[in-house]
Amino acid sequence: MNDKLMTMRHSAAHVLAAAVEHLFPEAKFGVGPVIDEGFYYDILLPNPLSDEDLKKIEKEMRKIIAADFPMERSEMLIAEAIKFFEERRQTFKVELLKELEEYGTTDLSQQGEKTDVEKPGVAVMYTTGDFVDLCRGPHVGSTKEIGAWKLSKISGAYWRGNEKNPQMQRIYSLCFETQQELEAYEAMLEEAKRRDHRKLGKELDLFHIDEMVGLGLPLWHPRGAQLWRTIEDFWYRAHQKNGYELVRTPHIGNRTLWETSGHWGFYSASMYPPIEIGQTLEEKKQNIKAEKSEEYLLKPMNCPFHVRIYQNDMRSYRDFPFRWAECGTVYRYEKSGELNGLVRVRGFTQDDAHIICRKDEVREELKRVVDFILYIYRSFGFAEKDVHVYLSLRDPKNTKKYSGNDEGWKFTEDVLREVAKEKKLDFKEEIGEAAFYGPKLDFKVRDCLGREWQCSTLQFDFNLPERFNMTYINADGKEEQPYMLHRALFGSFERFIGLLIEHYAGAFPMWLAPEQIRIATVSADYIEAAQHLMDELVGHGLRVALDKSDEKVGKKIRNAALMKTPWTIVIGKKEAEGGAYQINVFGQEENLMIEQSEILAKALEASQSPK
Amino acid sequence: MNDKLMTMRHSAAHVLAAAVEHLFPEAKFGVGPVIDEGFYYDILLPNPLSDEDLKKIEKEMRKIIAADFPMERSEMLIAEAIKFFEERRQTFKVELLKELEEYGTTDLSQQGEKTDVEKPGVAVMYTTGDFVDLCRGPHVGSTKEIGAWKLSKISGAYWRGNEKNPQMQRIYSLCFETQQELEAYEAMLEEAKRRDHRKLGKELDLFHIDEMVGLGLPLWHPRGAQLWRTIEDFWYRAHQKNGYELVRTPHIGNRTLWETSGHWGFYSASMYPPIEIGQTLEEKKQNIKAEKSEEYLLKPMNCPFHVRIYQNDMRSYRDFPFRWAECGTVYRYEKSGELNGLVRVRGFTQDDAHIICRKDEVREELKRVVDFILYIYRSFGFAEKDVHVYLSLRDPKNTKKYSGNDEGWKFTEDVLREVAKEKKLDFKEEIGEAAFYGPKLDFKVRDCLGREWQCSTLQFDFNLPERFNMTYINADGKEEQPYMLHRALFGSFERFIGLLIEHYAGAFPMWLAPEQIRIATVSADYIEAAQHLMDELVGHGLRVALDKSDEKVGKKIRNAALMKTPWTIVIGKKEAEGGAYQINVFGQEENLMIEQSEILAKALEASQSPK
Repeated sequence: MNDKLMTMRHSAAHVLAAAVEHLFPEAKFGVGPVIDEGFYYDILLPNPLSDEDLKKIEKEMRKIIAADFPMERSEMLIAEAIKFFEERRQTFKVELLKELEEYGTTDLSQQGEKTDVEKPGVAVMYTTGDFVDLCRGPHVGSTKEIGAWKLSKISGAYWRGNEKNPQMQRIYSLCFETQQELEAYEAMLEEAKRRDHRKLGKELDLFHIDEMVGLGLPLWHPRGAQLWRTIEDFWYRAHQKNGYELVRTPHIGNRTLWETSGHWGFYSASMYPPIEIGQTLEEKKQNIKAEKSEEYLLKPMNCPFHVRIYQNDMRSYRDFPFRWAECGTVYRYEKSGELNGLVRVRGFTQDDAHIICRKDEVREELKRVVDFILYIYRSFGFAEKDVHVYLSLRDPKNTKKYSGNDEGWKFTEDVLREVAKEKKLDFKEEIGEAAFYGPKLDFKVRDCLGREWQCSTLQFDFNLPERFNMTYINADGKEEQPYMLHRALFGSFERFIGLLIEHYAGAFPMWLAPEQIRIATVSADYIEAAQHLMDELVGHGLRVALDKSDEKVGKKIRNAALMKTPWTIVIGKKEAEGGAYQINVFGQEENLMIEQSEILAKALEASQSPK
Repeated sequence: MNDKLMTMRHSAAHVLAAAVEHLFPEAKFGVGPVIDEGFYYDILLPNPLSDEDLKKIEKEMRKIIAADFPMERSEMLIAEAIKFFEERRQTFKVELLKELEEYGTTDLSQQGEKTDVEKPGVAVMYTTGDFVDLCRGPHVGSTKEIGAWKLSKISGAYWRGNEKNPQMQRIYSLCFETQQELEAYEAMLEEAKRRDHRKLGKELDLFHIDEMVGLGLPLWHPRGAQLWRTIEDFWYRAHQKNGYELVRTPHIGNRTLWETSGHWGFYSASMYPPIEIGQTLEEKKQNIKAEKSEEYLLKPMNCPFHVRIYQNDMRSYRDFPFRWAECGTVYRYEKSGELNGLVRVRGFTQDDAHIICRKDEVREELKRVVDFILYIYRSFGFAEKDVHVYLSLRDPKNTKKYSGNDEGWKFTEDVLREVAKEKKLDFKEEIGEAAFYGPKLDFKVRDCLGREWQCSTLQFDFNLPERFNMTYINADGKEEQPYMLHRALFGSFERFIGLLIEHYAGAFPMWLAPEQIRIATVSADYIEAAQHLMDELVGHGLRVALDKSDEKVGKKIRNAALMKTPWTIVIGKKEAEGGAYQINVFGQEENLMIEQSEILAKALEASQSPK
């Protein structure tokens, strides 16, 4: 945010407060800081503001701005200022001033505003017409210089973010330099609302989160589960072609496993408490111990299980590389306030894989993974600009907190950087951002609001090979420690699907669409012909629904469009008699005409997944 | 077991004891009951018996039998008998006699032998040569009448199954009427050993159970996970064709959900204790509560989640039937002693589905499920004789312990029976075997030892619709309760795969085999040609491995056969120059010859999954 915009927003907050004071003289003002897209002001009022009130406030603000009052700076001794606000019953301002007097600051870390000590003992005030506010400034010269703004919403907020304090009303306003920028921002918000995966998830009947089941634990409805399956099938075929093998492991593991892996020690803040096995619920109720009980933990990661598969046999240098993939559902603790639709949940399915290889294979394996990641993004229509790449390195000043040795870190950091350059990735290096177990390359995708979410990742791990003492017999017949890479392409199915929904605004390409084709009959006379077509298409693996209800055909087409169904084929007299099919293609003005003899081939062609 | 065989086995046990007494005069005898395939005798001896000892005992038994001693019955007053055995230091017999005296019985429920009161105060004894034993009889006339027998193994057993008692040695013997039957049984055992899925699971590198991870929690190696995926793909396509939709639900659910469903109340003996969410492990260690905590339970069933998906929308009679399927992994407590390879585990993936429909749709839905189940068994090569069907009905004398009402039970039991008859199932009715929530039809499959394991099941549920108050709007615009069916085809993937391994003795048909084709090069000169063939086959979805090692080609073929790989293709000079491929087909004497131009088509044809 540039200084000019900052002063505009700052000044507009004063105008908002002045308008509120004119309309509601009993108002008590808190703070009015600048935020990303404008500003807000926290105000205590005897009654909740209505939309009507908001309009009145806006009108009053426009009056004040039209009057073109200067934003006049003045100084008062703090004691004087306290007296000034006490007379006006502005108790929050008095509180702020008393803190300013005592500490030289009003540390409002929650609200983002901070008053530094310019002149000790002095309070800076700004006057706008008849309204005076405590404020450090700076401001625009006069109210006419405030750019384009618009009150956007009201929410509740406790004074200073503490629920023991009075609850105030927070009036938000957008504010930009020009009307054009304001409108662009509003359009972006509208678009984000339209694309919000939580909203589309409901409208398209993909999933829901159920309070009775638990927060952060999505239930996938048939359409959502079908979308997942289609993505998983694509994932599986791509992994087969790329030389991966599948493995499959349980969702719980003995505490010993997690102690050995180090998760119990280092990752427990994200783990759920142990489950005692050897004692049933019933036995627990009755306080009976049937057999020696053991503690199990829900898995937060799949890695230790894959390590145990590796260790189930003696491995030789000839067997490498192992590329073992699993869509493994893991459970991690997140605070309920941090949960967010599908992008931050408590249970999620990683499209995980571990590559275990020799040192001389590392570079080739990294290149393969980077190619694979780029292939995945291309396949799902993400452009290069949608994906941001970060190379996370260790903090060379604090090497003790990391596993592995200097040589290993140098080799892996260098090779990661070299491969990233060779693959022409536009990446950013972040020192100190490596995991404690190794350096990594992360790929982040933006959601509809521009927030970045980590999806693909490619990480070295020095920790597990050490802790589990993983070995192989090298060409000299000696035991050696292999290199281990973690990688995920989607990151998690949940997050990736959430981002996909926003990316496509729910209008999935035909290969992904849960329902690819809807057949709509004009009347009951054509059900047989429709059923015949449906059977042919479904028999070839297409996902087709038949609407043979009594609705008018126009309504049927609109219903199909509500679900963003790629193709809607109407079956009436002409079609029943062998005439070409007329196909409503979602998002296209013009209908598609396809001869009956060609419908299957064309539908299959249109539904092909990326190669 | 017929009476004749029973007396043979009974008498042979006396002969065994007599032989042991001859060889080890210090032996103290417990009980020697008849079991399914022969008998055993529990004996306390100062030293553990060796295989050498077992041979000596057998030799001594043959002597006794050759002497053709009569099995002489006599009676003694119990007091006399006690004295008799006290003199011979047979303390266990004395203990039995004292109980016989006091209670009129020696209730050895653990050992399966029971002595009833024939004549109160009297003990029946049998004499075989110089050996006298307490025994109710009856026996064969003389030792020569004992059929074919063979000592089989020794295990430890506590006297009367109580670990506080002395540990005895249990000598097992097979015993049949004829040598032929004995040999047939031994051959069956050999075959069972060969087919044992735990043994084959290791040899074929399919899975292992890892003590560090936990008992009853299989880890699937690449070959096993591939087998699973192939089965799951087949399952998914079959479900699509059969009008099912997928759903997907988490592995944990809030306690409220399980209270509502009734599992918390009625099923807790199989459930694990709750996990507290809202407090991390770290916070627990430090005794901090971050937010209001809730209790979650690992799911023992998928049903309540499917119910919540149903309830997420208003349902109309027009929407039915819903057929919602999920491969859902559930966790249930089993005592460690009851765990058995893949067929009894603590975590398993049900191929679950719920059908929610109107009453007028029930019959049709049941028929579809039965057809589907039969299709599955056919597809995996099970014959009708391999699958046993049970219709479980409620106990009409104890209707209070069941959910639902009389009318509902009558309707569902009748319609299940009628459908089973219409589908010509050879089923057995079992009164009182219904679940408390509804009647059911179970399909059980035998393992290599002839034990039955429940796989497919088709169950009505009156409980969940009631407890969750599931409704739909019927044609009259009124709320009505739908019918709910649970069904599983495999039962669980783990168990079904375990049984499949035994069924095929690990030699999977080509469509199921994890590795369908192995290509073996004669020398390094032919790697390029081999790689070329491999790429073509893999590009068309076939699962192929290339053995380009330095081994001799004969060894390569043997290695492929060890993994029961269906096809092994050798690539040498002739093949590299375009000659026909010579294919070693697993289990066939003669090689298959296929022209190069036809190899892909033929391989795809041979690998086709059942239609």
